[in-house]
Amino acid sequence: MDQAEAPQQVTCAARLEIVALPGFPIVSPGDNLAAFIAQSLTLANIRPEPSDVFVVTSKVVSRAEGRFVDLNTVIASDRAREIAAQVGKDARVVELILRESTAVSRITKGAIVVRHKLGFVCANAGLDMSNAKPKTAADNSGPWVLLLPEAPDQTAASLRGELEKQTGVHIGIVISDSFSRPFRLGTVGAAIGISGLPALWDRRGEPDLFGRTLEQTVTALGDQIAAAADLVAGQANEGRAVVLVRGLRFAAHGGSAEQLQRPSSEDVYA
Amino acid sequence: MDQAEAPQQVTCAARLEIVALPGFPIVSPGDNLAAFIAQSLTLANIRPEPSDVFVVTSKVVSRAEGRFVDLNTVIASDRAREIAAQVGKDARVVELILRESTAVSRITKGAIVVRHKLGFVCANAGLDMSNAKPKTAADNSGPWVLLLPEAPDQTAASLRGELEKQTGVHIGIVISDSFSRPFRLGTVGAAIGISGLPALWDRRGEPDLFGRTLEQTVTALGDQIAAAADLVAGQANEGRAVVLVRGLRFAAHGGSAEQLQRPSSEDVYA
Repeated sequence: MDQAEAPQQVTCAARLEIVALPGFPIVSPGDNLAAFIAQSLTLANIRPEPSDVFVVTSKVVSRAEGRFVDLNTVIASDRAREIAAQVGKDARVVELILRESTAVSRITKGAIVVRHKLGFVCANAGLDMSNAKPKTAADNSGPWVLLLPEAPDQTAASLRGELEKQTGVHIGIVISDSFSRPFRLGTVGAAIGISGLPALWDRRGEPDLFGRTLEQTVTALGDQIAAAADLVAGQANEGRAVVLVRGLRFAAHGGSAEQLQRPSSEDVYA
Repeated sequence: MDQAEAPQQVTCAARLEIVALPGFPIVSPGDNLAAFIAQSLTLANIRPEPSDVFVVTSKVVSRAEGRFVDLNTVIASDRAREIAAQVGKDARVVELILRESTAVSRITKGAIVVRHKLGFVCANAGLDMSNAKPKTAADNSGPWVLLLPEAPDQTAASLRGELEKQTGVHIGIVISDSFSRPFRLGTVGAAIGISGLPALWDRRGEPDLFGRTLEQTVTALGDQIAAAADLVAGQANEGRAVVLVRGLRFAAHGGSAEQLQRPSSEDVYA
C-alpha cells in the first residue's frame, strides 16, 4: 500500500473486545498451532472477522518448536560461571542466556539484561523456567528451560498464512512475551513477532482537536496489543495461550516486530 | 486486606471490554471530570459495575486543573538555552521541562529524558504541545504548553470517591499518559495516577501449569490497563478522553501509580 495515498493504516475503534480462547491444549513439539487456534475458535463459537488480531504467547510457540533445554546437558563456560556468581544464578542458566544474546547490556540483582539474538533488549534473554517442562519428560529429568522462539516474525507470518487460508479473512498475528523495563516495576506484554498489521501506528500529520498538526505521535501498536492481551492471558495456571483482540481496523500490512526495536546507535540507554 | 489471607488481589478475566466513553466534551479549568464521566455513562447507557476501571488521559486532568502555560510568559535560564541549542528545541520549552523535573537522565536527539517531580522517568517531562490551547485563549496568544497534572494519584483517589458516591459500586481509576521507552520505538500508555486497584499484580507463589511455583511474576497491571485503553483513546482528534475497561475483578486496594516506579537506587539505567 502506498503510504502517500493512505497515511492512516489503522482505524481507531471506539470499542475493543479482548477474549482468551478457551480449551487451548498444552502444546508439544511439532504441534500445529494454527489448527489448535481453529479448534478453539470453533469451541468458542467465534467466527473470525477481518482485522481480528490473535495474540499468541511466545511460550506456546517455543513449545511447538521444541525449544526445551534440559539444564543437565548444559556445560557452563568460565565467563558464565563468573557472572553466575555475581548475580546468584545457576551457571548453566547464565550460559544459555549468553548463547542466546549478542551483547550484555547490564548485570543487575538477579537479572542479566542482554541484547537478544533476535535484536531486542530483554532480561535473561527471555528464558522461561515456568511451564517449561516437556509433556513427555521423565519425572527425574531437568530442571528444564524454554528458549524464546527461533524466528517469531516468520512464525507469525506462517501462522497468519495458515489461519487466513482456513478463515478466508485478513487477520493479524502478534507473538508476545512479558518484558521487564528500565525505570518501571512489573512486567508488560511486548510484541516479539508480528504479521499482517503495522507494528508502529504512525499518526504524524493528523490534526489534533484544535487543528494543530501532530508532530511526534507514533504509537507502539504491537506492544499495546500485547499488553492488552496479557491482561487476560495471565501468567499462572490459566492456560490461556491465545487471545483474540477484536475492534481494530487495518489493511494488510508488512509489519514486523523488528520494527519496534530502537537501533542501538539511536539509544542513549543501550 | 491482609496479604497473607488474600495473596491474589486480582482475578484474571477471560474477556475484557475496552470502551471509549462517547460525548466527552473539551475540558476547561475548573470543570468537574466526575460529572462529565457520569454524563457520558448516561449518554452511552452504561451502568457502572463493580471493578470497572475508568482510564482518564492526563490531558483532560491537566486541562481541568488549568495547567496551561503561555510560552510568551516563560523566561529561559542560561542552562535551558544551552540545552535547547543542543537538542534543537525552544528554550522556553526546555525551561519548563527543567522546572518540572528533579534530574536530567539523558539528553538525546529532540528529547530530554528527565526524572519528573512526580517521580517517574519520561521524555520532556510529559509536556504536551498538542490539544494544549485553553478554549477561551485569544487567537494570537501562545504557543501553549500543557504541564502534567499536579498530583495524579490524589486526583485519581478523589475522582474515584466522587464516582463511587454517584454509582454506589467499587471502581478503579487510572490516569494515563503516553511514554517513550528505552530500547523500543513508539509510545505506550503508562499509569501516572491510580486509585482503587493494585498497580502491580503480584502472582508470585501461584502454581504454574505443572505445579512449579512462579517466582518472579509481577505484572504492571496499571500500565497494561493504560496501554489497552490507549488503543481506543487515540492521540489525534477523536476526543476520547475516558475509556472504560470492564472484566477485571479486584477488591478495594490502596494502589498508587507511585508503586510502579523503580527506585533509582535499584535501576541500572537511571
